[in-house]
Amino acid sequence: MRAVCLLSGGMDSCVTASIAKNAGYEIYAITFDYGQRNRKEIECAIKIARFLNANEYKIIKADLRTFGRSALTDKIEVPEFEEGRNEIPPTYVPARNTIFLSYALGYAEAIDADEIFIGANAVDYSGYPDCRKEYIEAYQRMADLGTKRGAEGNPIKIMAPIISMPKSDIVKKGVELGAPFEHTWSCYRSGEKACGKCDSCRLRLKGFEEAGINDPIEYE
Amino acid sequence: MRAVCLLSGGMDSCVTASIAKNAGYEIYAITFDYGQRNRKEIECAIKIARFLNANEYKIIKADLRTFGRSALTDKIEVPEFEEGRNEIPPTYVPARNTIFLSYALGYAEAIDADEIFIGANAVDYSGYPDCRKEYIEAYQRMADLGTKRGAEGNPIKIMAPIISMPKSDIVKKGVELGAPFEHTWSCYRSGEKACGKCDSCRLRLKGFEEAGINDPIEYE
Repeated sequence: MRAVCLLSGGMDSCVTASIAKNAGYEIYAITFDYGQRNRKEIECAIKIARFLNANEYKIIKADLRTFGRSALTDKIEVPEFEEGRNEIPPTYVPARNTIFLSYALGYAEAIDADEIFIGANAVDYSGYPDCRKEYIEAYQRMADLGTKRGAEGNPIKIMAPIISMPKSDIVKKGVELGAPFEHTWSCYRSGEKACGKCDSCRLRLKGFEEAGINDPIEYE
Repeated sequence: MRAVCLLSGGMDSCVTASIAKNAGYEIYAITFDYGQRNRKEIECAIKIARFLNANEYKIIKADLRTFGRSALTDKIEVPEFEEGRNEIPPTYVPARNTIFLSYALGYAEAIDADEIFIGANAVDYSGYPDCRKEYIEAYQRMADLGTKRGAEGNPIKIMAPIISMPKSDIVKKGVELGAPFEHTWSCYRSGEKACGKCDSCRLRLKGFEEAGINDPIEYE
């Protein structure tokens, strides 16, 4: 039983891959070197794949800097967290999850995996449209129609098991499964330690706090 | 008015991009170097982009050889044409159009293009699931939900203007618009001249014949 697991180096995909591992899947990990300013993510993803004893591990070069338009790939400033902000933040990367899932779909079809696990999360989702449940459902329908596997009536399933969980539940789930939080990196900035101030750090810290668990990584 | 045009180097995407040009769009061309054994396709795509006076031209390296499982990227034999064959042929590349469209989507969103033109064709489609109308419609729905542009109510449209045309109509349309057929390459093999025997050559030759037009490229 094979699963392709998207690993970003962050805690959501780490817990998601731990769920797949715990369910008995052989892990085929895939990480994207998309020109992200923060290179620490990739190092963390490799450590997580090793920890989970992945059968195969691929780092795909998919240079999204060539298109630009995001604070995660360009020299656009990463904003600090704002309570109640409603708009899509500048850290949005055009079509990122769509591109990542599409590679994962090709990979899954090539190795005969039955599932793809993605750590998309809609609750604390920072306003990213490609982290919503209805997006994943629409992706599934498209994948069913666009692949040989789908056309043959044996579609590859897109699994987003933490999509509706609040961050604190993701933390608790990870602790329960022994997910290696110490190897994860969530900060949008690229300092030696996590900044503790960007959207991603704030959501992470809040999740650990609400779960009553100590975040094992260091902050500035 | 900007359009992202997927150019493969083949006649279908050439005619499709010519339709976009003729409709008054500024052309932002995108071609994929996906490890295809046939490198001539890329040279042809560049010539077509120049001919259409593209405002910008991107060659994206997206190495699908890393997954394998296709006669177009691996050392699997390209089969000769068989009348009435019903199954998906070994030239199918897992999730290829999905990966290509996903890059095009990111590109379109980054440059504020309103349309993506893809030369998918369902009539003589060789059995590829990702060339069907229902696939394109499902892709559209997914793109609407997964992008900032879609979330803001101003979705990027996926245009597949030749999807329901028989090959002979595509040839006629191309001639009408002055599409540069002399710069196109359809053969799956990588000889000096087109083989005239693979699925792709046979469908092309049949299209030109039925249209009563002379194919300007050379065959073995």
